[in-house]
Amino acid sequence: MDYDAIVVGGGHAGIEASLALSRIGFKTLLITQNLDAIGRLSCNPAIGGLSKGNIVREVDALGGEMAHLIDHSMIQYRILNRRRGPAVQAPRAQADKFTYARLAKETLESEHNLSLFMDTVVDFLLDPTGKRLTGVITERQHTISANVVVLTTGTFMEGKIFIGEYDAPNGRLDEPSAIGLGTNLRKKGFPVGRLKTGTPARVRKSSLDFDKMEVQDGEELMMPFSFDYDSINRPQVPCYITWTNEKTHAIIRDNIHRSPLYGGKIVGTGPRYCPSIEDKVVRFPDRNRHQIFVEPEGIGTEEMYLNGISSSLPEDVQWDFVHSIEGLEHAQIMRPAYAVEYDFINPQALYPSLESKLVENLFIAGQTNGTSGYEEAACQGLMAGINAAQKLKGEPPLVLSRNEAYTGVLIDDLVTMGTKEPYRMFTSRAEYRLNLRHDSCDQRLTEKGFRVGLQSEESLSRLRQKLEKMETVKDLLRQRKLADKSAIQALKMPEVTMASLQESIPELSGFEEPIKYQVELDVKYEGYINRQERQINRFEKLESLHISQDFDYDALDGLSTEGKEKLKLVRPISVGQASRISGVRNSDIALLIVHLDRGGHRER
Amino acid sequence: MDYDAIVVGGGHAGIEASLALSRIGFKTLLITQNLDAIGRLSCNPAIGGLSKGNIVREVDALGGEMAHLIDHSMIQYRILNRRRGPAVQAPRAQADKFTYARLAKETLESEHNLSLFMDTVVDFLLDPTGKRLTGVITERQHTISANVVVLTTGTFMEGKIFIGEYDAPNGRLDEPSAIGLGTNLRKKGFPVGRLKTGTPARVRKSSLDFDKMEVQDGEELMMPFSFDYDSINRPQVPCYITWTNEKTHAIIRDNIHRSPLYGGKIVGTGPRYCPSIEDKVVRFPDRNRHQIFVEPEGIGTEEMYLNGISSSLPEDVQWDFVHSIEGLEHAQIMRPAYAVEYDFINPQALYPSLESKLVENLFIAGQTNGTSGYEEAACQGLMAGINAAQKLKGEPPLVLSRNEAYTGVLIDDLVTMGTKEPYRMFTSRAEYRLNLRHDSCDQRLTEKGFRVGLQSEESLSRLRQKLEKMETVKDLLRQRKLADKSAIQALKMPEVTMASLQESIPELSGFEEPIKYQVELDVKYEGYINRQERQINRFEKLESLHISQDFDYDALDGLSTEGKEKLKLVRPISVGQASRISGVRNSDIALLIVHLDRGGHRER
Repeated sequence: MDYDAIVVGGGHAGIEASLALSRIGFKTLLITQNLDAIGRLSCNPAIGGLSKGNIVREVDALGGEMAHLIDHSMIQYRILNRRRGPAVQAPRAQADKFTYARLAKETLESEHNLSLFMDTVVDFLLDPTGKRLTGVITERQHTISANVVVLTTGTFMEGKIFIGEYDAPNGRLDEPSAIGLGTNLRKKGFPVGRLKTGTPARVRKSSLDFDKMEVQDGEELMMPFSFDYDSINRPQVPCYITWTNEKTHAIIRDNIHRSPLYGGKIVGTGPRYCPSIEDKVVRFPDRNRHQIFVEPEGIGTEEMYLNGISSSLPEDVQWDFVHSIEGLEHAQIMRPAYAVEYDFINPQALYPSLESKLVENLFIAGQTNGTSGYEEAACQGLMAGINAAQKLKGEPPLVLSRNEAYTGVLIDDLVTMGTKEPYRMFTSRAEYRLNLRHDSCDQRLTEKGFRVGLQSEESLSRLRQKLEKMETVKDLLRQRKLADKSAIQALKMPEVTMASLQESIPELSGFEEPIKYQVELDVKYEGYINRQERQINRFEKLESLHISQDFDYDALDGLSTEGKEKLKLVRPISVGQASRISGVRNSDIALLIVHLDRGGHRER
Repeated sequence: MDYDAIVVGGGHAGIEASLALSRIGFKTLLITQNLDAIGRLSCNPAIGGLSKGNIVREVDALGGEMAHLIDHSMIQYRILNRRRGPAVQAPRAQADKFTYARLAKETLESEHNLSLFMDTVVDFLLDPTGKRLTGVITERQHTISANVVVLTTGTFMEGKIFIGEYDAPNGRLDEPSAIGLGTNLRKKGFPVGRLKTGTPARVRKSSLDFDKMEVQDGEELMMPFSFDYDSINRPQVPCYITWTNEKTHAIIRDNIHRSPLYGGKIVGTGPRYCPSIEDKVVRFPDRNRHQIFVEPEGIGTEEMYLNGISSSLPEDVQWDFVHSIEGLEHAQIMRPAYAVEYDFINPQALYPSLESKLVENLFIAGQTNGTSGYEEAACQGLMAGINAAQKLKGEPPLVLSRNEAYTGVLIDDLVTMGTKEPYRMFTSRAEYRLNLRHDSCDQRLTEKGFRVGLQSEESLSRLRQKLEKMETVKDLLRQRKLADKSAIQALKMPEVTMASLQESIPELSGFEEPIKYQVELDVKYEGYINRQERQINRFEKLESLHISQDFDYDALDGLSTEGKEKLKLVRPISVGQASRISGVRNSDIALLIVHLDRGGHRER
């Protein structure tokens, strides 16, 4: 069996990678351990959130799939931070887990160039140099050739779950992990480490007392994540909010010695920003309560997700602390909370294209690179798929900049600084977040998606029409006077909204809401945006100063010892990236600028 | 955690057992290894078939669930043997696997008295006598008490899958088996053996050449399996038929030494009537082709099931022989065929109530009793659930007779004769099959379902109305004359149908088709039915001669040595059952009749 590309893993990264490769035109094989688990939402039944919602729309603008999947499966839609600035607003949706996964599988199966096969990859085939990948070997002893491979193993590479004293070689509860691959990668010299993450218990809806909880409804209207859709009409279901309390915390403190985390059984580092409830209790002893979102796992299921209290404590302790929480006093636990520890590969071993520096034609994406979250996985999977395709075409990789996408921030952070804990995206990680608004992802990325062969002509022309309409609206606002100033100047004032302008300028009602919303934000934030543009120009100067991958740092006199060491490790593609490596000094950067400006290594 | 009842396993037997117990009113816990695999159609995506379709309707008439599940998920409906007598006609439907399983899970979750928990049972708790069960122990070290337990482990008890040289401790591909339970049952003295079964490869729809196959469409109209529904309106999808050929057989013969079956790796006995393709090729060397039904696994999936060519040959051989078949030349295999070997318990160790003779309060159902097939599992699960409930209520078990249900035939066969290979139901196993027509299951069983607390008043009154209408139709036919005889006499003639009578008796059009269909069959087959009734009367005499469970066979002089041994092993509940035990002679039966007629042990 010969393929252009093999994608290993059918999670959120694998889905995007395999669709990108096959849609661009390459004969692709997706190998997954279990065809029945494709697109499974292993942890919370939701897509989006702060900055993550932006990532979903970036994936969509580039031609990825995640937005379509959630648009067809959402059962509640919310805009987070509605009352705060547009740069930090983001959409988030609860998903029907079963619909999401089933649709993911259907979408993969319907792709003509993509084949699916159920097996477990345990090793790679390399050419005689040992530096170039030629295929994979599976648990059932298939040897399958391909020109590129995208590795997306999630929590399955040497995965091990923990519940108190209990452990099992699983990537998810009762799902066997991929045994052998991590060991073989270590042997080949890959910088493999351990991380851990966790998931809370699932409880039975009819055993909960919602009268004791706060109801959290969705927005009036669902809005699609995808720029391909205009609207979604579907009934919404509520979530609920409750809180841990002193009693909950006492139960956890009294039993903390029984946690595999604190008992030393788990060596992997957990996610700082999505900690287990025992982590929160230990790290924040002054907090007397922690919030829990009680989220439905779907429309037709009784299972509900307890967002905020993941744990690896023994089940009797879980029983006790869950039942100490208001509204959960009689909760029937259907699945226990558990921690999972798994192999990841230090992403500093990757180029910004997500290709391995160690082995050519191997791309790595998702949790395997040390990230956390479905969206973080999806955008990496998409970029790995796109860049594997670019490689197959003999074209340069698509590297998104920090000022055009959270995806760019994420990948730059990973390959530049690596990570010692599961990396989660935050708005605050982006320097130019006013530029990364979710409503304008299409403006920044659709054309790039088109150029790599993922976006259609229709998407491009739809985008052009949208931009034209926005210009028309702006012209209209410039021409009309309100008292002594133009409408566009008036709109800059906090008390004037597009809705209020519509009373004086009835022609505005002829334009779609998203058009007007975007114009409003553009106008209101013009000052900030201009200031940010100037910063971006400075930033781009450094980013455009490329450094060749074989640049000889040893030959450059005057570099600090630590700076030289880190530069040789990361091998940044630009002075911009070099400037973000911890341990690289300003003086090292100055030296690089002087050297490269002399014309030394400008091209890549 | 204390429950009235625990059901182990969420397959077709476990679904029925847990619903029966909880609907009758008992606090029930279903423990399943994986909540995501409840109701999974592990093998062919279809429900029903000859005698199996009857079982589905028996389950429905008694108040079970299987008919509802398939009625809501069917994507093609057929009546098999349409051109043959009504006793051998039966409905069969293709299912959308995903809808079926999802609905099964929803149905279980919506049952108030039923809780679901994800864990693996590895041992039983017994009271100090060692003869009475008090609960279960799970892999994650939960000890859960209950007054009764129903064991339905399917292929998971010490399950092991085989594909050529490859094997893995799985109950289904990539699904971990339940390790430990089989060993613990052996230690406790249960007669545990090994059986094997298998499943064919799943191939990608768009890679098949349907032009080279025969299309098999469904009936014009879907008909519900359940007596609760009147009709189903859903578009149908076709199946396809192709055949193996000499080349296929040559490939298999040339590689037969690489089969784990023929190489001795598999010790369990396979299903005689659902053999692997290598079995067929070896056992029937003169056949130059075998039929294959190509069946969709659902509406939204590309996976198709190759009914007729299950295999445990190595995958390269599977590749070759699949591609040698017309229409499958370019088939992309998505999941390989495999064999699975698993522990079963000799069902002779059960009473006809499906309660264990060795350990009180333990009921066993489904593949664990050595059967094959979803329907066979479901009816046992239902009967085990009903009888566990009867036991909890202190009431006598419901034992169906061989003349009232295939379910009765199946359980009587199992507990009387045991099985050495996966037992599959056939029309020919039933002596009184004219009595076991699928259209009349409600007449035989609905009231029994009502008496044990599973059927509603509404079902009973609907049945009464149906019977009244049938009587009205018969009266009408008796009153009307056609030429020289009554319409009812005319209808006995082969050339006269109910449809043709309708021209002369327009009032008939006011009655529903199922009513008229059943009257037609009743009238046409009255002679056969009467003859069968006389046989049944003789049969019932022996069945009603009960033998006490502590009957002292040693004290009965004159029994043959083998007869005595077998009677002590099986401990039949009646002389009827005793007469079906192989090794028990006619003289032994005569001796028992004489002894019991004297009043020795009539009551149970």
